Amino acid sequence: MEIKRRKTRQVRVGDVRVGGGAGVSIQSMVKAESADVKAVVSQIKALESCGCEIVRVAVKTFDDADAIRLIKKRTNIPLVADIHFDYRLAIRSIAGGADKIRLNPGNIRSRGEIAQVIRAAKSSRIPIRIGVNSGSVMSRSQAADRRPQTDNRKPITENRKPTMAGHLVDAALGYVKLFEDLEFRDIIISLKSSDVASTVEAYRRIAAKCDYPLHLGVTASGPYDSGIVKSSMGIGALLLDGIGDTIRVSLTASPIEEVIAAKRILSALGIRRSGPEIISCPTCGRCQVNLMKIVSELEKRLYAIRYTLYANRFATIALMGCEVNGPGEASAADIGIAFGKSTGMLFKKGKIVKRVKAKDAVRELIRNL
Amino acid sequence: MEIKRRKTRQVRVGDVRVGGGAGVSIQSMVKAESADVKAVVSQIKALESCGCEIVRVAVKTFDDADAIRLIKKRTNIPLVADIHFDYRLAIRSIAGGADKIRLNPGNIRSRGEIAQVIRAAKSSRIPIRIGVNSGSVMSRSQAADRRPQTDNRKPITENRKPTMAGHLVDAALGYVKLFEDLEFRDIIISLKSSDVASTVEAYRRIAAKCDYPLHLGVTASGPYDSGIVKSSMGIGALLLDGIGDTIRVSLTASPIEEVIAAKRILSALGIRRSGPEIISCPTCGRCQVNLMKIVSELEKRLYAIRYTLYANRFATIALMGCEVNGPGEASAADIGIAFGKSTGMLFKKGKIVKRVKAKDAVRELIRNL
Repeated sequence: MEIKRRKTRQVRVGDVRVGGGAGVSIQSMVKAESADVKAVVSQIKALESCGCEIVRVAVKTFDDADAIRLIKKRTNIPLVADIHFDYRLAIRSIAGGADKIRLNPGNIRSRGEIAQVIRAAKSSRIPIRIGVNSGSVMSRSQAADRRPQTDNRKPITENRKPTMAGHLVDAALGYVKLFEDLEFRDIIISLKSSDVASTVEAYRRIAAKCDYPLHLGVTASGPYDSGIVKSSMGIGALLLDGIGDTIRVSLTASPIEEVIAAKRILSALGIRRSGPEIISCPTCGRCQVNLMKIVSELEKRLYAIRYTLYANRFATIALMGCEVNGPGEASAADIGIAFGKSTGMLFKKGKIVKRVKAKDAVRELIRNL
Repeated sequence: MEIKRRKTRQVRVGDVRVGGGAGVSIQSMVKAESADVKAVVSQIKALESCGCEIVRVAVKTFDDADAIRLIKKRTNIPLVADIHFDYRLAIRSIAGGADKIRLNPGNIRSRGEIAQVIRAAKSSRIPIRIGVNSGSVMSRSQAADRRPQTDNRKPITENRKPTMAGHLVDAALGYVKLFEDLEFRDIIISLKSSDVASTVEAYRRIAAKCDYPLHLGVTASGPYDSGIVKSSMGIGALLLDGIGDTIRVSLTASPIEEVIAAKRILSALGIRRSGPEIISCPTCGRCQVNLMKIVSELEKRLYAIRYTLYANRFATIALMGCEVNGPGEASAADIGIAFGKSTGMLFKKGKIVKRVKAKDAVRELIRNL
């Protein structure tokens, strides 16, 4: 099913368009110290080769900021400088050629300082992401609405109840107002909470309040297995609403896994198809072949012939264990097999091609792909 | 953030309540032939021990149906008989003591046959799931809306445009009408498509049309890594809307993985907290400890002391790499460490407890948990 996308302004990050009808772009972040140019460049090249389109680096020192110029020279995709606490690092990163600045309303609050960053961004014609995170805006009692509200400080909220989503939105809108007062509208917004529901609520609210493109993500989503679940739920629910112009899956894992997960999310929703989509049943007592083994072999073979999520070639491949949903899914896929007792019917674009034995299934699929 | 749940009727599956304010229950399906009682019982016991609350078995022969009585004797959780094509298998399964019947509108269409199953279910006071799947209702041209509509057969649709979601909803509502005409309302509905967006759309539509409890799932979602992404997006988006009373994650993988993924989904949304929730950042150039290694060690240690998703004990554990979001997330969690340069601050329920070295982090977390 095609998802109707929210209309947003378009912002350019280097040569990547974000929002305004552009495809949803995939981001990740370097997990090495920025001043270590060699390590950073190597990681960016690996990320780029697997489909990362925008990459961010942490800038915590002037050395990091100065490394941007060197990193830019040796890499191709737009580079974003991640700034916290010290606005001067943003100015220095812009001077170094950063393609975008991320500022955090949770730790740079001086209007004068923000105005200086905006002036520099304006003169270099680069956008700024207003990147709010739950960990930067919350006091303990407000944290992810996990505990009762016992904090006496009254946060500015849209409605009466101070919720995490409200805090995130308020922090972003405060910045937005300041940016607009200075006639700066090259803005991308993110509102990441470590709580999935708060993340989704925050993005939905801000989507109704402005037309800036949104950078989606669930923050601190944890190690691979649980992080994939949280990120898929949060980013997926929003994309299904048509919300989201660029995404970053955060995982306590290799950044390559982040990019692969992002591609899986976009591909499964039909927003940007890439790689083979394997449609395979969970199997049950009806299944008379070792479907798990066949699917696992297929994955390995596809990888061996470089038919991966990186490749931007797309096809649906169905491997179904019985006659209940098998013929339907196999004929709906680009290619598929509906198994019966030890053999199956091979479908190609909805037409039955031949009968194949289970042991030949993978070879026949690859041959007919 | 707490999610407001949709109000539904309550249905009982054995001693598990579904809908009507009951907790969202977790289901899986046995991946062995039902007549192989020993294998089935062993798999059900394993599933039960990791948190599966309702389990389904395929009934494709009378031998399978007759095995239900034996399986029921040796297991504890409610048993669902999955019926396709032949309504007599449903009658026989009910006689064998099945706690619920799943019927597929895609392959049992005779009103007289359905009426016989309903009569048997009514006299045994068990519910029926109306379980629609994309693979059973679609013709090739209708498949997941992936291709242009070229089929001349006119499907019954709610609106003019025949979409996969429309097909799923129509198939379910046709059955519902028949059931209601026979004054049978112990109904649970599922509308699973292999296309995530169609699945979500179908459930949203039916949620607006009736108050029967809904069994959520994305069908044929494929092998583990991509299946988790699809299932999390589909089931997660619906749960975030308050839709869904029982869930089944389908994976071409061990059914144990299905149950663990289901628990992760429910826990991350705060619907049913279980196990430790690790909140950890993806790391970046700011991080000066090997956070991935620490998180991975923590996972292993938690598993070793049986503090797992199975255990239904819940705690949030934050492991954060720097001072940006670290203190916020660590203080918001039940226990957490915000790292700086080689040491970190250990927080417990929002209060700083002590400074810990990176190498002692896991031990200190476990000790203070």
